[in-house]
Order: sequence, then C-alpha cells, then structure tokens
Amino acid sequence: MVVKVYGPAYGCPKRVLVCLIEKEIEFETVPIDLSRGDNKHPEFLKLQPFGEVPLVQDGDYTLYESRAIIRYYAEKFKSQGTDLLGQTIEDRGLVEQWLEVEANNFHRPIYDLVIDVVYAPIKGLPSDPKLIQENEEKVGKVLDIYEERLSKSKYLAGDFFSLADLSHLPFIHYMVNQMGKEYIIRNRKHVSAWWDDISNRPSWKKVLQLYKYPV
Amino acid sequence: MVVKVYGPAYGCPKRVLVCLIEKEIEFETVPIDLSRGDNKHPEFLKLQPFGEVPLVQDGDYTLYESRAIIRYYAEKFKSQGTDLLGQTIEDRGLVEQWLEVEANNFHRPIYDLVIDVVYAPIKGLPSDPKLIQENEEKVGKVLDIYEERLSKSKYLAGDFFSLADLSHLPFIHYMVNQMGKEYIIRNRKHVSAWWDDISNRPSWKKVLQLYKYPV
Repeated sequence: MVVKVYGPAYGCPKRVLVCLIEKEIEFETVPIDLSRGDNKHPEFLKLQPFGEVPLVQDGDYTLYESRAIIRYYAEKFKSQGTDLLGQTIEDRGLVEQWLEVEANNFHRPIYDLVIDVVYAPIKGLPSDPKLIQENEEKVGKVLDIYEERLSKSKYLAGDFFSLADLSHLPFIHYMVNQMGKEYIIRNRKHVSAWWDDISNRPSWKKVLQLYKYPV
Repeated sequence: MVVKVYGPAYGCPKRVLVCLIEKEIEFETVPIDLSRGDNKHPEFLKLQPFGEVPLVQDGDYTLYESRAIIRYYAEKFKSQGTDLLGQTIEDRGLVEQWLEVEANNFHRPIYDLVIDVVYAPIKGLPSDPKLIQENEEKVGKVLDIYEERLSKSKYLAGDFFSLADLSHLPFIHYMVNQMGKEYIIRNRKHVSAWWDDISNRPSWKKVLQLYKYPV
C-alpha cells in the first residue's frame, strides 16, 4: 500500500516526506493549495477537521499531525531504513524530549518569524519589526541551548540522527534560505556543523528537489 | 529507584504525576517555586536549561518536557498499571495524533487563557478582554471538534483511555475551577461526559488531593 501524503509543498508535511525517505517507505503526494483554501474544503475537513496539513492516508488508516506521523512510521518500520528512535528506551525518551523542545520552544517563534518575514509581505499584510526582533531573540536563545548540547553530543538526542534532528529541517531551511537569516545558525559553531550535517542528508536533498516550497 | 518529579504544584508536572500513578510507579516530589525563581537557579538550569517544569530524575537518567516523560513511562512500563498507548501500533499512532492536537491546538489558547484570567490579576498585570475572548473562542472551536470525535468513540484515540486524554486533565481543571468557565465543557454533551469520566479517575483525584495548584 502506497502512503498518500497531502500538502507536500509546505513546511510541516516536509517533516513527513523526509522521514518516509529515511525509512525507505514508498509514497505519493496529493497537492493542497492553502492559498486557495483546499484545506477548508468539506472533503478535506472530513479527513482533517482542523483543516491543517499534513495528512496521510495509508490504506484505510488516516493520520494527521506531522510529529505523530513521523513517530508512527519510525516505530512501525523500526528495522527498515534509518533507525530514527535510538536503540534503547532511554534513547527514545531523549528523542521524545528534544522533539518536544523542537515543537514547543523552537517551532513557535520560528513559525511566527516565517509568517511575519516571508508570508506577510506576499499577502500585503503589515509585518511588525518589534515582533520580528522578539521572535529572532527567542530563536537565538533556544539555539544557544542547542549549541551547548551539541558541544557534547553529535545530535540532539545523542550520537545518533533521530526524529528530533529531522523535525528541525523544514523551518531552519526557511530561516537560512527564504528569510536570509543564515547568520543565526552560522554564529554558533556546533549548531552550524549540525545544520551542515543534517541538511546534507540525501533524504532532505531529495525532498527539496522534488517538492518546492510555495515561496 | 524512586522517580523524582520537580514542580508538582504546577499544571504540566501534574501530567507526569497522574501518569505515574496510572502506571503504578513509585515517585517522590521536589517543590519548585516559580514565583521565587527556583527554576532559574543555576543548579536547576544544569538539569533543565530552559528553566521549565516538570523535570524527572530517575537514577542518573534525567528527562524533561511533560509529554516526553509520559510517553517514556507509558512505553517503559507498558504492561504495568493502565495501558496508556493502546494495543496496536495503529492505536498508538492515534494516541500520538491526539496528543499532538492537545499540545498544538488545545494547550496554546488554554495556556494563554490561564495566564490572562488566573495569573495576571494576581501579579497585578493588565489582562486583555479582547485576547481573553479570542482565546476562549479558539478553545471552543477545538472542543467542537472534540465533541464530534467523542460522539464516535469514548475517548480521543478510540475506546480506550490514553495519554491523549490524560494530557488534558491539568488545564481543563483550570478552566472548570480557577477560571470559572465550566460552561465551555458543559455546553458540549460528549465533551462533558468525557470530562466527567476522566476527571473522576482515582489517579487524578489523588493528584489533586496530594498536590494543590499554586492558585
């Protein structure tokens, strides 16, 4: 059964795509255009009542929320492709910890930055320089903690690449590319080396080659 | 080895406490007073660099982020106490999905509401009626989707109590009690029955009896 991934152009669905490639799972994609409101279409809302992407359909099993989907496939196909959960239950605990840090501490300010810096100008909306500065400072403080952590282990959860690292790819990509704020990464030696490492994985390069960002 | 839980008075650590009780895991607690800045103490920051609670120490294993901790113990002690992950890997996928919905869709507006309605007046800070109304509407929209879901299954991830339900306890408690907004739950028949069910579990009653909220 080929996994169907909805909304491949966007940041959060790219988390799922890079995971499926790492796990060597066959998939196809269904384009969703948020600017056209495809995600508010009644047929879509039947599958994803919050009107968000990604969504996957795998036979008659439907799942949403990118970090839930990557956990599901990483566990279901634990011994196929790259192991993304660590070897022990304690490794997995740390993967979960850093995945939560990504979602709660990193993603919130970076998401607001992407909206304010990248999307507001396109939509003709005002962007707030004070808010941009505040969110940039928040991201910086989180990355200072990553810098310390990555001075002690090669990846966030330990010396193995995991869902916790993978989950950062789509939005750090925005920061380094569309936002023109690569310096936030480059100012931090260990974060910079970690970014080079994870963003050069063939899986991520393949995602970027196959599915352009909407902006 | 007894698990040490830091910060038992607060909402997020209560997620961990109720999980440990459900899993029949022995624990002790270490008080943390956020209003006194215990969480910014250098010794605490060595263990939790973001200065947040909860934090657990289990022998020489340290873990933070409440939803990472509950996943760790639910998996490590899968066959002890209440099974909180479902029976199959597909069940667990749905537990993960609804746990992410709790964190991303429900917790953000309810957390802001708690700060604005409960904590701002205590700290002598202004609270913004427009923001309160907006966040209450956001919570209501999420609960409308829960209402639909809970008309089809007894709990969020299916017909079994799981981490996804448990994770809602501490902040719905704020809403129903300290915030005086029980009507948001009672206006929705299935959400109301679900709340009665989960909030009457002996594990949650024990948490409330042992660890008073700070407000």
